[in-house]
Formats: sequence, C-alpha cells, structure tokens
Amino acid sequence: MIAADFTTTLNLNEAGTEMYALVSELYPICRSITGSGVRETLRIIQNRIPLTIHEIPSGTPVFDWNVPREWNIRDAYVKNSLGERVIDFQKSNLHVVSYSVPVKTKVSLEKLKEHLFTLPDHPDWIPYRTSYYAENWGFCLSHNDWMRLKDDEYEVCIDTSLEKGHLTFGEYYLPGESAEEVLISCHVCHPSLCNDNLSGIALAVLLAERLGQMKPRYSYRFLFTPGTIGSITWLSLNEARLSRIKHGLVLACVGDSGKFTYKKTRRGDAEIDRAMAYALQHSGWEYEIVNFSPYGYDERQFCSPGINLPMGCFMRTPHGRFPEYHTSADNLDLVRPQNLSDSFAQCLRVLQVLEANQAYLNQNPKCEPQLGRRGLYRKIGGETDSRTQELAMLWLLNRSDGSHTLLDIAEESGLEFGTITQARDALVHHGLLKERSEEASSANP
Amino acid sequence: MIAADFTTTLNLNEAGTEMYALVSELYPICRSITGSGVRETLRIIQNRIPLTIHEIPSGTPVFDWNVPREWNIRDAYVKNSLGERVIDFQKSNLHVVSYSVPVKTKVSLEKLKEHLFTLPDHPDWIPYRTSYYAENWGFCLSHNDWMRLKDDEYEVCIDTSLEKGHLTFGEYYLPGESAEEVLISCHVCHPSLCNDNLSGIALAVLLAERLGQMKPRYSYRFLFTPGTIGSITWLSLNEARLSRIKHGLVLACVGDSGKFTYKKTRRGDAEIDRAMAYALQHSGWEYEIVNFSPYGYDERQFCSPGINLPMGCFMRTPHGRFPEYHTSADNLDLVRPQNLSDSFAQCLRVLQVLEANQAYLNQNPKCEPQLGRRGLYRKIGGETDSRTQELAMLWLLNRSDGSHTLLDIAEESGLEFGTITQARDALVHHGLLKERSEEASSANP
Amino acid sequence: MIAADFTTTLNLNEAGTEMYALVSELYPICRSITGSGVRETLRIIQNRIPLTIHEIPSGTPVFDWNVPREWNIRDAYVKNSLGERVIDFQKSNLHVVSYSVPVKTKVSLEKLKEHLFTLPDHPDWIPYRTSYYAENWGFCLSHNDWMRLKDDEYEVCIDTSLEKGHLTFGEYYLPGESAEEVLISCHVCHPSLCNDNLSGIALAVLLAERLGQMKPRYSYRFLFTPGTIGSITWLSLNEARLSRIKHGLVLACVGDSGKFTYKKTRRGDAEIDRAMAYALQHSGWEYEIVNFSPYGYDERQFCSPGINLPMGCFMRTPHGRFPEYHTSADNLDLVRPQNLSDSFAQCLRVLQVLEANQAYLNQNPKCEPQLGRRGLYRKIGGETDSRTQELAMLWLLNRSDGSHTLLDIAEESGLEFGTITQARDALVHHGLLKERSEEASSANP
Repeated sequence: MIAADFTTTLNLNEAGTEMYALVSELYPICRSITGSGVRETLRIIQNRIPLTIHEIPSGTPVFDWNVPREWNIRDAYVKNSLGERVIDFQKSNLHVVSYSVPVKTKVSLEKLKEHLFTLPDHPDWIPYRTSYYAENWGFCLSHNDWMRLKDDEYEVCIDTSLEKGHLTFGEYYLPGESAEEVLISCHVCHPSLCNDNLSGIALAVLLAERLGQMKPRYSYRFLFTPGTIGSITWLSLNEARLSRIKHGLVLACVGDSGKFTYKKTRRGDAEIDRAMAYALQHSGWEYEIVNFSPYGYDERQFCSPGINLPMGCFMRTPHGRFPEYHTSADNLDLVRPQNLSDSFAQCLRVLQVLEANQAYLNQNPKCEPQLGRRGLYRKIGGETDSRTQELAMLWLLNRSDGSHTLLDIAEESGLEFGTITQARDALVHHGLLKERSEEASSANP
Repeated sequence: MIAADFTTTLNLNEAGTEMYALVSELYPICRSITGSGVRETLRIIQNRIPLTIHEIPSGTPVFDWNVPREWNIRDAYVKNSLGERVIDFQKSNLHVVSYSVPVKTKVSLEKLKEHLFTLPDHPDWIPYRTSYYAENWGFCLSHNDWMRLKDDEYEVCIDTSLEKGHLTFGEYYLPGESAEEVLISCHVCHPSLCNDNLSGIALAVLLAERLGQMKPRYSYRFLFTPGTIGSITWLSLNEARLSRIKHGLVLACVGDSGKFTYKKTRRGDAEIDRAMAYALQHSGWEYEIVNFSPYGYDERQFCSPGINLPMGCFMRTPHGRFPEYHTSADNLDLVRPQNLSDSFAQCLRVLQVLEANQAYLNQNPKCEPQLGRRGLYRKIGGETDSRTQELAMLWLLNRSDGSHTLLDIAEESGLEFGTITQARDALVHHGLLKERSEEASSANP
Repeated sequence: MIAADFTTTLNLNEAGTEMYALVSELYPICRSITGSGVRETLRIIQNRIPLTIHEIPSGTPVFDWNVPREWNIRDAYVKNSLGERVIDFQKSNLHVVSYSVPVKTKVSLEKLKEHLFTLPDHPDWIPYRTSYYAENWGFCLSHNDWMRLKDDEYEVCIDTSLEKGHLTFGEYYLPGESAEEVLISCHVCHPSLCNDNLSGIALAVLLAERLGQMKPRYSYRFLFTPGTIGSITWLSLNEARLSRIKHGLVLACVGDSGKFTYKKTRRGDAEIDRAMAYALQHSGWEYEIVNFSPYGYDERQFCSPGINLPMGCFMRTPHGRFPEYHTSADNLDLVRPQNLSDSFAQCLRVLQVLEANQAYLNQNPKCEPQLGRRGLYRKIGGETDSRTQELAMLWLLNRSDGSHTLLDIAEESGLEFGTITQARDALVHHGLLKERSEEASSANP
C-alpha cells in the first residue's frame, strides 16, 4: 500500500525536472495517430518503464470503426517561384495538416489558400489541424506568413505515405496485491505540442515508475494510445477484462500554470470522483471540479454508455481554454517543471486515498471501548480541546459499522486523510477495528 | 408531434389579438357556477372549437358535494326614496353577490349596510363576492358610493332564481396518436373579470384550436368548468378514466403584465414540472416557480390526495397578488394581447417538450460511433470549439442508455431543446438512436 | 398528550427560579464519577421527583469497561513549611484532581509542580482535572497562586479512599399512554461546576416534575448518571429494553447566556432532529444546529454504532466553547434563571411536537370535502386572503395520505404547530381525519 508519507519520501522537485526533461526529449517528434512518430515516442518511454508495444493492423474492426491506414511523413513544403520554401515542415511539424495525402503539384495562390489554415487572432502562431478520416491535404502557418504570400505559382510537396500498416500503442501493467486495477491513460498522437499532451505522457511515465517502487494494493495499468481510435482499439481488444478496472484517470494538459481541473466520471459519484474532490480540498491548491460532458479526451470512449468505466480526467487548464491550445505556442515555455511536479503530487495524493480507502468494522461497537487502558487516550481529563489523534479514533470507531470507508470518515470529520490512516493503524493494532473484507471472509469459512 | 419550429409557423401576434377579442366578447356576460351565463359563454367558445356541453342536474352527488341549485339573475338594484337606482346590476354584474337569493323589500340604511361589501383601500373599485353555499344576499359597490349613501329607506330588489336546474360545463377532446392525455383546465364561473379568468379561457381555446391543426402525439382534453364544483363534478363523473392523464395544466390569470408563475404539481417532480421549468429557463422571460400548496384554483381538486393528477397551474400574477384581483379593476385594461400571446407561446413551448420527450437507446453504445463517415462530424480536426450540433449528438449518444429522456439530456447539457431534437433526428436517421419503446416492442415479437 | 398551550399554563419564570435554586443547592457538593457526592446529589433530587437510585458494585463488567473503584475524599491540602495551607480543598473542591490517590508526603517545590495544573491564560481561575483511569494525584490552582509558590518543602495531604464500592446513578420512569419512551439524560459527575452540568440536572428535574403533571402520550425516562461510565453502565444493564426508546436528549450546559445549540443524533434525520429544528425555527431565539460528532457528552455512548439511539444533545454554549468551561468560573454567576427557563420552554416545545406528531388519513381524499356545510369555511367567497385556519385544514387534508405527519405538514406549510394541531382537532371532530394507527387497527379486527 502506498505509504501515507510518500510526499516526503519522494523527491518531488526531482520528479518535476525529470518530467520536463522527458517532455523536451519528446517535443521534436512528429506524432500522429499512427506511424513512426508514435513508435519513436514509445521507445523513448521504454527507457524508463518496461512498456509493451502493440501493433494493430490497418483495417482491424474496432467497434464501429476500423483501424486506419498508417501515415508517415518524410518532408513537406510550399515553394515560391524563386524556389524558396515559404512553408517548411522541417521548421515545424505543425505546418502540415496531419494525415495529409501525398501531393506534388503546382498551384496558384488562390488555389493554395483553399488548403491553408491560420489563426488571425494570434498572427504569430501556427495552428494544429488534422484530417484523419477525410482524404485531404493542407498546411498550417502563421497568419503573418499567410499575409506575406504573394500572387505566384507555388510548388506544393507533401511527401507522405498513407498505406496499410499498423496502429501502435503502449501498455504497462504493474501488478499489485489485488487483481483490481487502476487505469491511467494518456494520448500520444499529438505532434510538437507540450501541454497537450507531452505533459500527460510524462506524468503517466513518472507515476508508473514511482508506483513500481512502492507495493500498491491495486494493480496499475498505463495506456499510451493515440487519441480516440487508440482508446477505442484498446477497449475493443480488452472488453472482457474491463470489469477489473475500479478507478481510472485520463491525464492531459497537466503542465501549464493554471489551476487544477478535474472532470468527473460519467457516473458522477464514483470513488475516484470523491477521492479526487477530497484530495483537492486538502491540497491547498486552486482547483475546479466539473461534471462529465461527452466532449474532451479519451474519457469520451471510456465513459461511453456501453463501457461506462469510472474514469475521470485530470487536467490543469482544459482543452480549448488556454489560448495556446492546439497551436505552436503550446511549446516548452508553456509547461513548467514545478507545474508538472504539483500535478504528480496531486495524483499521488488521490492514489494514496484510493489505496487506503477500505471499510472497517468496530469490534466493540456498543459504547466506546476504553481507549485509556490501551494507552490510546490522554491520562488527565477535563481539558478543553480534544486531541486530533483521539478525535480520529473516535470518528473511526463511531463510523466503522461496515458502511463507511476511510474516505467517508475523512470527508465527514474534516480530518486529514493521513490522520485517519494513523488512527486506523492504532485501532487495528489493538484489535478494535478489522477490515470489513476480512470480517466477511472469516465469517464464511 | 408538434414541430420544433411551431413558433415560426404560428402567427403569435395574431393569436394574441384573437384571444383579446374573445376576452372582450365574453366580458359583459354575468357568469356564476351555474346558469345561463355559463351556457352563453360555452356557446361562444363553440364558435371556435367543437365543444361538448354537459348539463348535470342539481342534486347529483359528486364525491362529498351535491350539484347545487341553478342560479339565474334578471335584474337587481337598490333604490333610494327618490326612486333612483343607487346600486344597479345593469351597470355592473359585480354589484350583486353571486348566488344572492331573491329579495324584494324595503330596509333602513343601517340594515342595508349589513349586506354591502366595499374595498376601503381602493375606493373606486367594486369588489366581487359570492355566497354559493350559504343562503344570503348582498351588494358590492365602490367605497366612494357607499360613503355617499344617506339615511333613507331603500328599496332592495334582487330578481334572481335559485331552483333545481343544472350545472353546465364544456369539454373538448382532441385525439392524438396516443390515448394518453394532456388535460387543460380553466374555470368559467367568474362574471366580468378579465384576467381571472377570461384570460385562461381564451388561452385554452387558442391552444385547442392550434393544436388541432398539428398532429400531436398526446390526446388533449380541454375542460371549461365552474371553479371547484365544476372540477369536482367532472372528476366524479370521469374517475375511471383519470389514469390516461399523463400531464395537465390549470390556466388562470394569464393576461396581466406580471412575470410568469408556475405552481408545481402536488408530486413536485412530475414531468410537466420539469418541462415547464426547462421551458421557462430557456424562455428569456421573467418567471417564478412555486411549490404546490392546497389553496388556489382547481389544482386543489386535481391534486387532492385521492386524485393526485400531475397537474400544475400556469399563471402570470397569481390570485390575490395583484390589487385588481376580484374587483371591477380586473377589466379589459388589465389584460393585454401581447401578454396573452406570450402565455400562449410559453404553453406551446412546454407542450413541445412533452410531445418530444422520449427516451432513446444508443444502438452503438460501446465507444462513440464514427460520426465522420456518416457526414455528421467536421472534417478538419483540431479546432478549439466544439460545434453545437456535434455536441448535441455526443450528449444524446452518451445519455441514451434507456434511462434518460430528451428533457433529461437538455437539462444536463444546457442545450436548447430544438438543438437536441434536431440532433436526435439526425441520429435516428442514421440508425444510431432508436426509441426505447420501439426497442422494447421489437424485443417482444 | 401535552396540550398545545402549555406555555401559558406553566409559569416559566417560576420554573427558572426553581432551577436556579436547585443549581445553588447542588453547587457546593464535591461530585465525581462515584462516591458520596453523587449520592448526596441524587438524594436532593429525590426531594422533587421519586428517583430510583441504583448502586452497581465496583468490578462489574459493562461492555468493554469495568465499574471502577469508588472514590471518596475527606480533605486535601498542600502546606508550606510555615504550616499554611497554600492549596486547600476546603476552599474549592476543584483544587484536587478528581480520583487522586491518597497521598501523605513532603516534597520540594520542583517535585510538587509536576502535580500542579493551572490556566496561564486565565490566571485567577482554578482548572478542573480528572485522572479516573490512571493512578495519579494532583492539585489544580490559579496561575496567580502557582506563581506565588516559593522554594520550600511542602506537605502534601490527599485524604481520599479509592476502594471497592459502587457506582451510583438515578433513574426516574414516568409512564405515559404508550410504552414507547423518550429518554432524557444528564451527567451528575462534575463537582462545583454550574453550567456543566448542574444546569442540565436542574432542567431534567423540572421537565420530569412538570411532565408528571400532564398526561403524556410517551413514557419518559430520566437518567442522572456519571458521565461516560455511568451511561455505559446503564446501557449495559438495559440493552434488551433499548428498542422502546423512540427519541432522546442529552442535556448539558443549558444555563449560560449563549444561543441554543442542538447537536443532531448520529442518524442525522431522526424525528427528534426534525422536531428540534422546527421548534427552534419557530422559537424566535438564536440557535445553531450542528451535525453529530463522536466527541462531547453521553451521546458518545448513546450514539455508538452498536447502540445508535436517536438521541440528540441540547445545549446553549457547547463544552469547550465558553472560556469558563471546566474552571472555577463556571459558577453561580455564569448560570441565570432566565436562561434556564428559556431552555426549559424550548425542551417543552420540542416534546409538544413529538407528543402530537402523528400521521392521519383524509377520510374523503377525492377532491376537497365541503368544509362550508360543516361550518369550517368562510361563508362569503371572493376575498383575497386565505385564512390561516382554513389554510391549515386544506394542508392537512391534502397531505394526510398516511405518509405525512403533522410535523411534515407544519414544515411544508410553514404554519405554526399549534395552528396545525387546532385544525387537526376540528377535522378529526368532523370525521374528516383519522389517525393512521387507528385506521390500521380498525382494518385488522
């Protein structure tokens, strides 16, 4: 079980630095929902955790979808009649609309503009656009560059391939005491965009790494998949095993400096929802909790009505709410090591609650047990204040009727979770509390 | 089913003008809970809708009550010793306490005053008073006129009859696709009072007329009954058929310029309560929703514990809350065509929600279906904003697990009901949604 | 049943004076959890109510505890080398830590100070301390006196006995129409402390006395027990009979001038919780309602998970929230007759609600019954305002479907409880309402 004192045993600053370094290492790679960019990304992750890499052939039916053809890009540019690259994939992989079909042609400015995307409100930034499921091609560029384009004949070259191949994703299973699982998922399909979602990747990697050093109660499964089609593919391949998943988090946009945002599961009252709310309340950080909605990241799939996993989404600033979202400004400046390490700490706090959140049975439920003769209570009576440890024990004894978990008791009492678990330890040690599950199993020999 | 676009196909201004004209036509008639005034009123309504007129004999037992004797009035006055009519029924039918017994006598001022009712706080207005169930007689007059009465011998004449006859009410049944009914009720027993309740009568008539031009899913039943005894009589005669009534509204005081007031059903969480709340929230008009209470209009009977129909009461300013209530100032100036037409539009909005409020089943509940290949989703990805139509489809797909109706989804998503129904149409067209009831019946061949 | 008009028939001022006199009479006695102080206290209470006094031998096992040895004190002091009593039990029984073992020795100042307790923040006050379950001895004194102690050899004398004996508690059972009980409990173990809890004792005594003059529906049981061990002992001895207890109150700190504080039962939604909340809302007094927590008075035991009685705790300022708490300043000045009488009145109001809080069945549930012909309704109709009595009758008729009690109806309607009970009387008299329980029994001959 994750120790209550993990925040002191773990070096959070170091974790932030490591996550930022990983983001930096992955930043230059041109990822899409298939292709060599994803493979290269997963290989780098394998340097830290023993990821299994799955390759699913194009055309494989996955629920209502089919695994698409694999897309790879070598080069792309638009040259003016002087032979100058006025748009150049080598300078930024955002310049090419993802999944653009191969093109080698000459076009007028007017014709070219039908394939150009810009952000007039942010004239220096390059937007990020995709066309996965409609055959098309296009370039993204800054609006300033767009305005500088003159009437001319342009040479357009998109040196891509869109062919039968594979969809690639990574999976890491960390076994715990129980076969019940916590699922951590992040999307790995975005090119040079840091907050969305190299930050989520880095956070998942560090969680996997550090949880592997503890002895968790739950088993943990980490998914590094292309957005939408990747999670659909994984769900399709693993449908029979989904009942093992007791809690889950989608990680995205966890490196910017905005407050924490937690989007609740479709169920709205799952244990992960309550654990996250409790941990945020006691975090001292600013945060917002929002209800589930069917737009966003892969919780769209995990929380579809026929899947309905208890998966929330943990973010700092949500998609579409920061101006740099899906632009070249979502770069290494937007993400900070400190933000990453705070996100890491917050996730560990939540997991700490989930790991410990069991229900107990008071073994002496009629009146209070005599804590004093067990050395658990003050010797001199009459003082004004109750002591926190005693209070935690009294709450545990009063509520441990089998229908209240430690989280219930922490919420109701307003006490820190660590205080509750310490009091629990003392009462279990003296035989005054017993895990409900143990009680149940001993009652059925 | 009522089309989502009714507000554009219906000419609301014209409806307001027509309702006001009907109020004006009915205004001079002296109505009471029985008698020729009610009959004349119902005959005028028959000019617009094919009302069935029921005549129930005096003495008929109806639950704890008996149909009272029929009351008719020809003339009434108080003359002073000079032979001048100082109170004259011919000038205002409010002057006579309704159900006054016949009187032909001479009395002193002192004795007369025992039978006079005024409103000292509104000295120009004549109050409206009744004495249905206690044999009595009386006059109502302005306080100014009352103060001008001098010591004198007065001739009192009330030329009424109170004899075995009938209680009269009107009923119009508009069949829809289903035998399930929506009940619309209004009281027709008040004399020359416009807001209470010629406004409610006019609104019911226009709703009946215009719904008859649509092809509603529900059947609609319109009741034009005297207050209290009329609804009790109808309920007593129709008890066996009440289970067909799925929703209902009592209409009263819908022509003044106050904000909308909706009084919830006794159940407090009926579908009509939620549909009205949703439609008011999205109306852009000021409104107030109040809990059920057992005082008011015929919801007192419809929502008695042994009847307990899901009937709310739709008003602008409620009874007793506007100073003109039950006085001669509740006249043709208090009611405005625009107010009537807004009330009409609001009722239609609510009915539109009820008509469409079905539950659907997502036919592809595991992960999202691929909307793109069906032409239901944008072709270029990566943009910041979701589009309303796509969002509505995603909400519908996510919540259509059989336990959420369109109203549930509209409430939760915050989207306009029309947006939801359009998205529903698209998804049903592509076979992605199916009505729950169809699903159920096809599963039981 | 307690009449609705008790507040006029009872002389509340007189009750306040009597309670204050009882507090004053009990004030000098040195009480602890066992011993002659408790016995003397109970004998004084016997002057007013026929209390049964129980003596439970030391060593008797009571749930997880054992009845402790009996403690008695004759004298205690600390003398300086001049033979002057610098701390003297004869001046205040708070000077000795309760349950101090016998001591007769000479000690240095340094050694003495290990056994001294003071309140530096309130240098004039003597604290109250206990050491029931750890063998120890000590003195409490004002911090000013503590600072005046000089280096010296001190003679310490604690002339106590701690021997096999008995735990003593008092119980008074007042039979009502029903065998169902209301339990009223207060602790009698504190020495010269007025608010905590001579005030609670005095309130319990007056309630017992005055309820004995009425003919209550419920039976009432009054407990005067030492805190914690006393209630544990009583619960242990009476476990089989606990199911009779339908409501209960722990009384403590009811004589200070703070606002009322009601601490809810462990269940949180017990009838006593709702009755108290309603009675406080309509009291006109300032109050606060707090959730159950497992620290406080004997509700800790009554509301332990294996006992779980519907017992709340009625206080003015709670333990630990007034500076005089557990100090010599909790004296006869802190408690005022008016505060005691207001507490008394509030308790009676709550009991009045509980006594009357039955569910009725409308005998004419289909539409309203005709109240007019029974003389229960105004004769002239048309007025703006409903009358309170009529409104109360309409509420009762509408909600008396067997699932709403008078308290439910009072809460929902916002009407005064006395108005509701008067309307109930009228409707019962006319056969329009019948008690649900009578209905049930007449249906099962």
